[in-house]
Amino acid sequence: MSLEIERKFLLSAFEPPPTAVRQHIEQGYIAIKDDGTEVRLRRIGEGRVLGVKRRASPPAGPAARIEVERALEEREFTDLWPATEGARVIKDRYTFEASGAIVQVDVYQGGLAGLRTVEVEFATEAEAEAFAAPDWFGAEVTGVKAYGNQTLATAGLPES
Amino acid sequence: MSLEIERKFLLSAFEPPPTAVRQHIEQGYIAIKDDGTEVRLRRIGEGRVLGVKRRASPPAGPAARIEVERALEEREFTDLWPATEGARVIKDRYTFEASGAIVQVDVYQGGLAGLRTVEVEFATEAEAEAFAAPDWFGAEVTGVKAYGNQTLATAGLPES
Repeated sequence: MSLEIERKFLLSAFEPPPTAVRQHIEQGYIAIKDDGTEVRLRRIGEGRVLGVKRRASPPAGPAARIEVERALEEREFTDLWPATEGARVIKDRYTFEASGAIVQVDVYQGGLAGLRTVEVEFATEAEAEAFAAPDWFGAEVTGVKAYGNQTLATAGLPES
Repeated sequence: MSLEIERKFLLSAFEPPPTAVRQHIEQGYIAIKDDGTEVRLRRIGEGRVLGVKRRASPPAGPAARIEVERALEEREFTDLWPATEGARVIKDRYTFEASGAIVQVDVYQGGLAGLRTVEVEFATEAEAEAFAAPDWFGAEVTGVKAYGNQTLATAGLPES
């Protein structure tokens, strides 16, 4: 269980720095509920994970979410994967340090090709608020539903 | 992961035999999908489990289901439980041997009080078909949607 506090921005262009760690990610949603609760399968490198996320209760702040994750065997993942049909995202993720923070750039593939986002994770809400986005970041889309993974997976690329 | 092959019957009355093991069960559904896939939380005795069930592909037979389960910490369970609001079942389960099989009698509580069911689990479809229900079993409700846990949790007691 962890509380995630993140900010998310668009990128108009992206060239991975030599230090970036690249991971191929395939994630699919078994369920997305009206209250924002999601149940997802994620394959990231050799890892396979079942995860449930939901919004934390009010005191934890609006950007905070509850996340529970468990590793799956390959067979379990394969058995459950068909339940995510029509709600999948495939992307390459580049993780590296920039502007004193660890950033994750996602380069989407398939039907979402052309979309690039960058996420920065923080330990506290105060840190998140104090973060000054570097020049190469585009528009902030933190909390913008159209750029959330749930919506991207089910509705495709936002109109711009 | 396990394939479940079960038959389920109603009980008009039930007196637990002295050998029965009693467990208190609270289960709630985070998600129930149109294709029958369910994501549930279950507290059974001291155990807390996150589970995903879905129908197996056709060769495994109509009564067969895929099930993936993982244990949760108390805090994780408590954090996720609100996501099951409006889709919960509370019952006492009595497990014992009868008619050469292990049977599980569920005595429902709360809004489902008065309902009693018995389930028998089998290793193969052939065993399931060969099973002769004893006299104290009521009508068979295997596969009857109104008596499935999903429907009981969300729609309440079936009209009879």
